[in-house]
Amino acid sequence: MKFKHAILIIAAACVAVPAMAQFAKPEDAIKYRKSSLFVMGQHFGRIGAMAQGRVPFDAKAAADNAAVVEVMSKLHWAAFTEGTDKGETRAKPEIWKDAAKFKEAGDKLQAEATKLSAAAKTGNLDNLKTAFAATGGTCKGCHDNFRKD
Amino acid sequence: MKFKHAILIIAAACVAVPAMAQFAKPEDAIKYRKSSLFVMGQHFGRIGAMAQGRVPFDAKAAADNAAVVEVMSKLHWAAFTEGTDKGETRAKPEIWKDAAKFKEAGDKLQAEATKLSAAAKTGNLDNLKTAFAATGGTCKGCHDNFRKD
Repeated sequence: MKFKHAILIIAAACVAVPAMAQFAKPEDAIKYRKSSLFVMGQHFGRIGAMAQGRVPFDAKAAADNAAVVEVMSKLHWAAFTEGTDKGETRAKPEIWKDAAKFKEAGDKLQAEATKLSAAAKTGNLDNLKTAFAATGGTCKGCHDNFRKD
Repeated sequence: MKFKHAILIIAAACVAVPAMAQFAKPEDAIKYRKSSLFVMGQHFGRIGAMAQGRVPFDAKAAADNAAVVEVMSKLHWAAFTEGTDKGETRAKPEIWKDAAKFKEAGDKLQAEATKLSAAAKTGNLDNLKTAFAATGGTCKGCHDNFRKD
């Protein structure tokens, strides 16, 4: 019974971790963050195509894509769990060595993605361009510091 | 000038496709749908762990995960574009042969995922269990008919 009790405590502890941070194995965490970053990148790229004039501006499409970017911008952070610095990943050790700086980078993206979504909803291309550039800057900043080439 | 004009018409035609359906190449569409399905599956699995009593029920975590499932449930459908039945995919030809049935399956998942998110917000475990089972049924139904083993 003591063993069973211990298991329950461990299970409860696992649940105390944010819901977003539960992965069966390290490979799943890596696959998850790559997946969510890829999906986010696809939608962000569609906004970029409009912001940079490569496709005509479509306010509805911009708003739809930005809403997805906003949701996705919150997801991958919880997947940089301990022990996921190895394997099929370009994550730099600095993610874990300088966790505060990494968190700051994560917070920045989420803040800018929220602004991007709000800007897209205005239906104004100049607002979209400004917010796209600011959001893209947070992507680049994080990749420069925390992703291997 | 005529060529430029033709390019503009083609570009405009591309944009007339829903914003969600723009992929640079077929491989991107396949990677996108696999990615979004994996992310959705991870969050759905966390709800399942609670619904099936493998981890204690946490109403906030259930609602957060269900909200992600609801958003993700809308994404992958647009990535089953023509020409993406080949390559690294388990998609069956029936997806394109019986597009109406596939769309129906997609609509069902999205409807159930919306109900799941609403059920999770009630904070009631029985509601969550019912909605989890219904949503899981739509996953299975679509996989049985449209995914290779």
